Amino acid sequence: MIRRLCVIGVGLIGGSLARALRQAGYCRDIVGAGRDPQHLQQAVTLGVIDRYETDLARAVQDADMVVVSVPLGAMQAVFAAIRDHLAEDAVVTDAGSAKASVVADARAAFGKLPAGFVPGHPIAGTEQSGVAASFPDLYRDKRVILTPTDASAAEAVARVRAMWEATGAQVTEMSAEHHDEVLAATSHLPHLLAFALVESLARLQDQREMFEYAAGGFRDFTRIASSDPVMWRDICLANRTSLHVMIERFSADLQELDRAMCAGDGERLLQLFSDARRARDRYVGK
Amino acid sequence: MIRRLCVIGVGLIGGSLARALRQAGYCRDIVGAGRDPQHLQQAVTLGVIDRYETDLARAVQDADMVVVSVPLGAMQAVFAAIRDHLAEDAVVTDAGSAKASVVADARAAFGKLPAGFVPGHPIAGTEQSGVAASFPDLYRDKRVILTPTDASAAEAVARVRAMWEATGAQVTEMSAEHHDEVLAATSHLPHLLAFALVESLARLQDQREMFEYAAGGFRDFTRIASSDPVMWRDICLANRTSLHVMIERFSADLQELDRAMCAGDGERLLQLFSDARRARDRYVGK
Repeated sequence: MIRRLCVIGVGLIGGSLARALRQAGYCRDIVGAGRDPQHLQQAVTLGVIDRYETDLARAVQDADMVVVSVPLGAMQAVFAAIRDHLAEDAVVTDAGSAKASVVADARAAFGKLPAGFVPGHPIAGTEQSGVAASFPDLYRDKRVILTPTDASAAEAVARVRAMWEATGAQVTEMSAEHHDEVLAATSHLPHLLAFALVESLARLQDQREMFEYAAGGFRDFTRIASSDPVMWRDICLANRTSLHVMIERFSADLQELDRAMCAGDGERLLQLFSDARRARDRYVGK
Repeated sequence: MIRRLCVIGVGLIGGSLARALRQAGYCRDIVGAGRDPQHLQQAVTLGVIDRYETDLARAVQDADMVVVSVPLGAMQAVFAAIRDHLAEDAVVTDAGSAKASVVADARAAFGKLPAGFVPGHPIAGTEQSGVAASFPDLYRDKRVILTPTDASAAEAVARVRAMWEATGAQVTEMSAEHHDEVLAATSHLPHLLAFALVESLARLQDQREMFEYAAGGFRDFTRIASSDPVMWRDICLANRTSLHVMIERFSADLQELDRAMCAGDGERLLQLFSDARRARDRYVGK
């Protein structure tokens, strides 16, 4: 049970968390914080938060749980702004899509990693953004990965875990580095490929014609290229180390397919395609 | 109006064409042909075709329209088998996903390109295959590209066009070479990327874990990797020239993203991602 929840960044992610916890009766009081008073007032009107502050020092006052759900590029400044104003028993977590960079930001802002800091990442979202798109069931049966640091107190980890479980999410723990590798492979690389594919088509001479003939598979494949460019810029920069490794691996695998194709090696192609279909069907389903 | 339609290869594509033309009352008599009598009997039972032949010479007898909807790797052998048995007024078309290779196969099998030969490609399909998955509305409002050769008679082109229009499809014409470039960019490359991405993940050490964390975007992105491996082997081999060019372009665009990312060039990333989102939203929609 949370006494006072402070959500810094009341968008799809932060707003849906607030709605879920309110619906579950898991917190008494919800303070929203951010830079845009109009946006925050909308969150109050929608019943997502009880009140708001644009001053972060005031926002975290007496909050026993602080959730930072801002773009990765803004994390360090937020940590610095709240550092000297946290309640004695405050636990701080975040919802960033990369974790090693958030840990580095926290170390830089706090001086050393606080015992009450537990990095986290809810693997949920839609192509929508903003508080108007938030809904209480966003996290139901979704995964939330926590990446406790060496400094994280067991009790702080338990409190963050309990909060996410109250939303219906499945919580797991791993290291920040492993998280970043897993997400580079399963989310960040696919997004980058979709962006690059659309970019490639847009650069062809017959751009309009190309998109006209693009069939259903293309639509599915590139849907994620319609995601928020700022968020993806931040994710790429924050997770560039793991993502670069995955791009190199993917490029090597694509080159292998290309070589087999150019050599007319139908057997090899068939084997590669059959392996891929089998792997996808086994793990992901239709 | 077709007197006798002969469909060689009664799967999703050939079967749906037969169903659509029957529903439109556009042909009197439908003969199915292929290698597997059990499969063909199923097509008779389902009412897709009136009767079947496993001997191609007999199958095309007195047919004024012959549609060859077999994998690209089987085209040449089919053309060779029907060459000396076509009716005087027969028009031959196909449904292959690459066109320059089909033209080359026809030239090789027929000696020279026949006036009654009009290559075609209906841009429609599902991940399903087989006659049981066929349905009469598969082509409604879908595009069919015809790629007449220099030898194709205007009347033959008109008859193939009229047939596809009877299914509710929108028919356009272009050169085989241009078709192959357009399809390489909009269909064949996306499929190859999906296969390569799944392959990359399947090669990672924590394979099972990777797929467990793969979120919704990944599912959309890789759905096409569940398509028929034999068909895609044939498409890659048949369209390798255009596809290789597109792979090189895509790889260059991906490298550009990677370089901007590794250099920490957030402005460039934001520009590339914004361009891609704008292009996709303009042409493809949500």
